[in-house]
Formats: sequence, structure tokens, C-alpha cells
Amino acid sequence: MAGKRLKFWGWGYDGEGATEAERAAIKRFYGEMFALEAFPEDVPRVEDYALGKPRVKPPKSLAAICAADPHTRLAHALGKSFPDAVRVFDRKIPHVPDVVAFPRSEKQVAAVMDWAAAAKAALIPFGGGSSVVGGVEPAVDSKYKAAITLSTTALDKVVEIDKTSRAARIQGGIRTPAMEEALGKAGLTLRHFPQSFQMATLGGMIATRSGGHFATLYTHIDDFVESVRMVTPSGVMESRRLPGSGAGPSPDRLAIGSEGALGVITEAWMRLQDKPRFRAGAPVAFADFLNAAEAVRALAQSGLNPSNCRLVDANECRANGVNDGSAHLLVLAFESAHYDVAPKMARALEIVRDHGGTVDASVSAEAVSAWRNAFIRMPYFREVITPWAVINDTFETAITWDRFPAFHAAIMAATESAIEAATGWRGLVTCRFTHVYPDGPAPYYSFHAKGERKALIKQWWQIKKAASDAVIANGGTITHHHAVGRDHMKWYERQRPKLFGAALAAAKSVLDPAGVMNPGVIVR
Amino acid sequence: MAGKRLKFWGWGYDGEGATEAERAAIKRFYGEMFALEAFPEDVPRVEDYALGKPRVKPPKSLAAICAADPHTRLAHALGKSFPDAVRVFDRKIPHVPDVVAFPRSEKQVAAVMDWAAAAKAALIPFGGGSSVVGGVEPAVDSKYKAAITLSTTALDKVVEIDKTSRAARIQGGIRTPAMEEALGKAGLTLRHFPQSFQMATLGGMIATRSGGHFATLYTHIDDFVESVRMVTPSGVMESRRLPGSGAGPSPDRLAIGSEGALGVITEAWMRLQDKPRFRAGAPVAFADFLNAAEAVRALAQSGLNPSNCRLVDANECRANGVNDGSAHLLVLAFESAHYDVAPKMARALEIVRDHGGTVDASVSAEAVSAWRNAFIRMPYFREVITPWAVINDTFETAITWDRFPAFHAAIMAATESAIEAATGWRGLVTCRFTHVYPDGPAPYYSFHAKGERKALIKQWWQIKKAASDAVIANGGTITHHHAVGRDHMKWYERQRPKLFGAALAAAKSVLDPAGVMNPGVIVR
Repeated sequence: MAGKRLKFWGWGYDGEGATEAERAAIKRFYGEMFALEAFPEDVPRVEDYALGKPRVKPPKSLAAICAADPHTRLAHALGKSFPDAVRVFDRKIPHVPDVVAFPRSEKQVAAVMDWAAAAKAALIPFGGGSSVVGGVEPAVDSKYKAAITLSTTALDKVVEIDKTSRAARIQGGIRTPAMEEALGKAGLTLRHFPQSFQMATLGGMIATRSGGHFATLYTHIDDFVESVRMVTPSGVMESRRLPGSGAGPSPDRLAIGSEGALGVITEAWMRLQDKPRFRAGAPVAFADFLNAAEAVRALAQSGLNPSNCRLVDANECRANGVNDGSAHLLVLAFESAHYDVAPKMARALEIVRDHGGTVDASVSAEAVSAWRNAFIRMPYFREVITPWAVINDTFETAITWDRFPAFHAAIMAATESAIEAATGWRGLVTCRFTHVYPDGPAPYYSFHAKGERKALIKQWWQIKKAASDAVIANGGTITHHHAVGRDHMKWYERQRPKLFGAALAAAKSVLDPAGVMNPGVIVR
Repeated sequence: MAGKRLKFWGWGYDGEGATEAERAAIKRFYGEMFALEAFPEDVPRVEDYALGKPRVKPPKSLAAICAADPHTRLAHALGKSFPDAVRVFDRKIPHVPDVVAFPRSEKQVAAVMDWAAAAKAALIPFGGGSSVVGGVEPAVDSKYKAAITLSTTALDKVVEIDKTSRAARIQGGIRTPAMEEALGKAGLTLRHFPQSFQMATLGGMIATRSGGHFATLYTHIDDFVESVRMVTPSGVMESRRLPGSGAGPSPDRLAIGSEGALGVITEAWMRLQDKPRFRAGAPVAFADFLNAAEAVRALAQSGLNPSNCRLVDANECRANGVNDGSAHLLVLAFESAHYDVAPKMARALEIVRDHGGTVDASVSAEAVSAWRNAFIRMPYFREVITPWAVINDTFETAITWDRFPAFHAAIMAATESAIEAATGWRGLVTCRFTHVYPDGPAPYYSFHAKGERKALIKQWWQIKKAASDAVIANGGTITHHHAVGRDHMKWYERQRPKLFGAALAAAKSVLDPAGVMNPGVIVR
């Protein structure tokens, strides 16, 4: 409501977007790859969309925190996935919330839940809105008389900082940049930077088990959660602030990953870091991707715990202008606030050299930094390329090391052939490791395909389906950190132990007896 | 059934116990402290106990894996807590299982569950039997027609080792020494050594969120669990082997800490370690305990992640013969299989010196090693001192750093005055940190009191209650790694979010609809 206005048809806020230089680079890349000639511009306007009238009206007591204007409704109708972008440019947004509520207190959160239940409406929690898996789309079945979206973004404060324990009590709707700014004043940082950094909210990151800055050790936000406070339709569930506990199954782990299906995370005590003062890093080139993966395995099992250990395959390096595509690149770095990391870096370089890696002097620090910058800017590019009928998406997973080589081959083959089958053209599939563990990597795949403007969603879905089937059939997880949402439910249900699904459904029936919370996600 | 016979009235196996030298040292210590003169010997015999006849008989198909002889029933009637020992020597064991089943396969586990449900009996999973919180005692209410104990110890194999991912599939009933032996042949180790090491089973450690060797980072067994297979009365729940995942709330985290109330953990894929080759360590002395705690806080927040970082207060040092009680001692050590830990150790020593610590050359490596040995031997001492009417017990918790000083003072005061109120004598309360986190320590308290032989349980309970009340009132957890069992339920329920308790109960009603599994524990 306050501050900058969300851009309803793309990433970020009104007035933001790709720069001219970025557009030119993207044009060059896809122009060459797919022999594109037309690069249409398309700037959607609110008036382009036929919205039904809101089917519910907030009670008087909530009117001041609710909005039902077309812009607000459109800005909360979709996440930021590829099919979301296509539907924006198609001017066909199938599900639009009737009303968007911006509660400013837990009491108001509870009141919105009560209203939704009374109105037989579905309630969709909405934080950063950066879901790429249909997590915030009010696509609910017809038994719901309406869909109300609950934006958490007015719960935007760092409430309390405990410098002694290096922890802070933070409201769930604060966006990461504002949170980091407030923590930074105390010399602290959460140091958890997903690609959605600019828009992401703390509660959204916890609810979706977001993956962050650290490539090893503290990969998911899970480990930074000291305690959680979640408002559910049945009341408040709050865990005790504890550095560790062995008292029964962890209550926090029920809230973490619940994706809005059990309640709204209104507050959490988060474990923080000191800002790093010592750094060491180097780009390491490999001729062979599986050798590089072996080097990463050795690093992941060494206990050195590099902060960065991103292996980027040659095609992805080329696509991002890091090198000419002649080598796979490992971006390796250590950081610490408390000790010199040079000895660790030296030992890590011994390990990578043992596996055929060479420090690549031809890759400048600028190129690596450009890649990091491109990574954060990438969400802006989707609105540029979608009108060009380029299909571009990513999916990510995790797999144990013993199965990685066969898994990787299967995923690459399945995705490549699905692209050809769906579009009639060869596409490009690339891979990087975003996070690595002693027992396996989290590979992240990007694909690029030449689509047909009128068939984009169908083509995309054909590719997505083949890739997801391959991930599940070959033993991976349907998501390492993008979450389940509505798009992944089918595969999530194949992966999840059946009895655990039944236990979760039983837990939901206690916390959300009327089933208003984000229906269709996690539990259906 | 096979192999060495469990000692029904003490720790370990028949024929084991404290050595003469150990007995003499314990006698000296308590003799001086409590002016004891009588040191009675008492060796219980099976015939001392009046056992009712088993109220149920196994079906023919299970007869071969069931035992109902008095020794087996007595050996599975209690855990190893202080009140358990008193009841052994009192010849009053209130709850004895009617039958003990030793299933050799998951099919037999399921068959035992079916039998229990059909017989309207409670089913008590029993691994190492080392519970100090009433976790394995068949103390169930009268709605159950009998109590059957399910010993997992015939499920005792390391099934499969994946050296590439450094993981192994291991059966739940294997004891830690046998597991380590099998893993050691592959050059690997779980490196998780609780005090109950000798008896503990893998499944029991997972079900109770056991705390192990590492003082930082990998403190609980939780982090070593790659996937879990649990047989429940409703069927098998098995999670996928994954190095990491963001697909909904973690299914493993429901099984971890479930303490047999949801099912029996029959198998798990565990993340392993390479055996350490590099080591560095030193005992560091402090004049002031809170200064020492500040040093530990700085270490815990440094990212150095020492493998050992146990702070032992002066009284506990004296009690264990590590020093004369004139200083608090930090046992600090680093280890690695892959890199020289000397630079870390050097930086850690700078940090402790900044907080007034000095490397204590007067403490020999032998003294530290003697302390470590005494730690492992300690469970044998309980059977020695209980007939002397010495009350000796421990409790443990975790608390954030900001609250630690006031918390510690409150716990010490509450426990000391409860000892005096309960026994009329001053006792001794000591503290050490078993594990430490960036946001707080896990303090572990031991207490020693002079009791009256006929009032030991009443006196103990009065002290235990006061200590537990103080832990909960001052913001701690009722257990960091001893688990909840029956003894902690009251405080666990005060600490646990109410709605989480309701969600757990709903989950239990799905997994264990007849409520046969370990009734009274975690869910009641």
C-alpha cells in the first residue's frame, strides 16, 4: 500500500526493468541461438485485463487494510514463473484475488482469517510474491466462494536485536533489503541472499525453505531459524527461543516449508552472522564436468565449508558471458568475520588441483562479479524475452553423489529431447551447483528454447513435465529450494512418504480446520 | 537373545561393573563429602522380584522371537535413571513387560504391532534401554490389557555402505560399537558418541535426538540423518535419500524425536565422516566461570567450529579428579581428516586468552583422557552408589547467551536449595557445557546429595521437580539431548506450543490409530 508500487506485469516495482545494455546482450544471445529476428516490445496496462467484480467485500473493521483496485488485484494474481509471465502477456490471468488484505498486526491477520472462513473464501498468503511454482496464485477449486490474498508486507519491522546471542526478532513481512539494512546498523547480517533477494520477505523465505548465500553448511534458511511465531486459523503457534533442543520432534520444522498452508509466519527469531572481514576466492577451470563434480565432492567432504562453491557448466558460463564456453568454472570462496581464511583456501586449491582444476587467470574478478550481478538481475529479463517467444526456465534438485553422474545424464537427455519434441528446435540446457553437501550436490538446471508465441505454456509444460518426471524417476527431489507450490504438487506427492502426507493433512486439520489456508498447496 | 546377556540390575552386560579402583575412588569422594561410613554392597538376583504372570501370550507365528522369562522381562522393565536404580535395589519394579519380542525383520515388527493392537496391549520400543527419562518403562494406564516390549536389537546390521556419498544404510537396532566397527572397515565413522555409546542403538539415538561427540555444528544426531525408514502400525513411512531438500516440511523431522510414539525406526541412511588424521587440543583454565562462558560464546560465534569445546566448572573438575577444583576448565580441540587444524587452534587460543583463559600446563593429557574415560564409565557407578543412599543425577538444557548468566544462577540456586530442603544436607551441584551454539550453550548439571535409603525416590523427585520448574520458568528446554520420556512430559507440555502438541496428536492418530505405541510419551 505504502512506498513504491509493485509492478504487476514483471519483476520489482513500477518503473524498473532491464537496462538498455542488458536488453542488447539478451537480444544478441537469443538472436544468435534461435535465429530470432523479431523482438517485439509489449507493455501491458491494467486496462488490458478483464477482471470480474470482487465476490466478497471486507467487513468494515478490515476495510482500511484491504484493497480491491485492479492494479493491486493484478499485482497479487501470479508469481514470477515463466507461465506466469506468458499469461501476463497473453492478457489472460485466470485467477485474480477478489480482495488483497494488508494486515498491520497479528490481530488483523487473525481477523482476516476469520473473515475468510466466514465468507467461505480461500486465503492466500503473499510475501515477496516471487514464487516460481504457483505458490501464490489463487487457483482454488470452485468450492471456495472467493479468494482473498493476505499480503504480509505491512508486518515489516526488525522488532528486537539480541547482540549477545547474535539473534533478532523480525516480522515475517519485511523484505530482505530492509531487514539487512536494519540488522547492518547493529553490525549483523542474516547473510541469506536468494535470487529473489530484492522482493523476498522473511516469512516467505521460511515458509518455502529458501536457499541462500552459503553454498555449504548453512544452505537453507532452516538452520537460521531460532524460533517461529505462526498465526493459524486455530490460534498462535510459537516455539521457544532455543539454541538447540531435543524435546520431541521440532515444532519449527512443521512451520518451515509449510508454504502458507498451515498459517502465516508473522515473526521469527533468526540467528545472525557477523559481517565478514576476511575473504579469499578464485575461479577454477575444469575441462571435464564430471571431474569438476568430483572436485566439488572432495571439497564438500573436506570439512573446509567454503562459503561459495558454485560449479557452473561451460554452456552456462558462455550464456552469462563469464567465459567463451571452453571450460566449466568453479567459483570458490571463503569468508569469515573472525579468522584468516587463507589456509583454508590454500588447502582447497590443493584439492581442486588434485582433480584437474586450474585457477583460471583469464577469468577476471569482474567477470565473476558480472555473473553474480546478472544472477540478481535475471528476474528482470523474463519480461523482456517472453514476448520474443523464448522459453526460459530453471528447475533445481538434489541428489546423492553416487547417483549424480547417471542422474545428470538422464536429466540433461530428458530435458533436451523434451525441448525438441515440444518445439521442433534444439534448445540449450545448462547446469550449475547452487549448494553442495557432503553427501551430494544440489544441481540447478536452466533451459532455453525457441517457442511459438501462441503455444508457449503448452510447450513449456511439456518440457517441465518431462524434466520433473526424470527428476523423480532418478531419485532426486522435486525442489531443493524453489518450493512446491501448485506446480510441483503432483511430483511432491510421488516423492513424499504417503503416511507423512496423511500426517501433514491431519496436522492441517487441527491448525486450519476450515481449510482456508492456501488450498492446493502441500496438502490437498 | 543371542550374545552377552543384559545385566538386569545395572549398566551393560552380566559380569560387568565398576572396577575396584573405581569403587575406591567413588567411596573416597562421597565418603569425604557426606561423611559416609557404611558402604553396603547389594547384588540383586532375579528371584528377589515378584513378577506377575504374563497377561498375554504371543501368537504361534511370533513365539520364536518372544521371551517371557523373568530375567528378560526384568532387563526390559526400566531404563537407567536414578529412580530406576533405586527401584531395582528396592526390589520394587512397578511395571514389567509381559513379553519381550525381538523381531528380526520389518515384517515381524509389523506383526508384533498387529498383535499388540489385537491384544489391546501397549507396545514399548526398546533399543539400548539407556533412557534416563522413563522412555522405555512400560508404565501405561489401565486401559491397556498388557505391555509388550519390542527390542530392536535383532535388527543389527550395517546393510549397505555408499563410500562415494559417505553414507550407509543401517538397521535401527544395531548398537553403536558394532556399527562403528562395521563402518570402520570402510574407513568411515558416524562419529556420534553419546555417553550411552556402549549400549545405544542407532534407532534409539534418532528417536531421542541424541547428542554426540561434536561440541559444535553437528551436535545432535539429527544432522546425520539422510533418510529414515519407520514401521508404524499404519504401514512403512520412508523418506527419500537426499542430501538436502526444500519440498515441504521435512518428513525426517517428524520421526526424529518421536521416541517410539509413532513407530519403530527400522533403518536409516546416515551421513558419515572420514576418520580424523589431524588433531590439536589444549585444556584452558579460567578463574571465573562467567568469563569462561564468554570465551566459549566467542568461540561458538567465531565459525571455527571446534570439535570439542566442553567447559567444565571447577567443582566438576574436582569431582572427576581433573584438577583440585581451583579453576574452571575448557577442553578445547579441533580435528579433521582433511586439513591441518593448527591455524584454527592458534586463532582459538587467541580468543580464549582475550577472555582471560590460560593454557593449563598443570592439567596433563592423561587427566583429560581420564575425565573422558570416567565419562564413559559413569553409567557403571550408579549401581555402586545407590545402595549407599547417595542421590546422584544429571539434567541438561539449552538457553540463549543473553539469558545464560541469570539462568545459570537461578538453576544453581533452585537445585541447591531443593537438595537442602529434600535431604536436610548441603549437596553439590556442578555444571558443564556439553554442546555450544552461536546463539547459546547447552549446560549440563550434575548433582550429588546425601539421601535416606528409604526416601530416595521422594527426595530425588523433589529435587528433580525444582530443577525442572526452574529450567522451564527461566526459558530453557526441558531437554537438550536426554529426551522427554515419561519423566519430562509435564514440563515438555509446558514448553511445547499447544497447537503443535495438537498437531502431533493428530499425526499420531494417523500413524498409530489404536494408540499402542509407547503410550504416555510425546503424545498422551
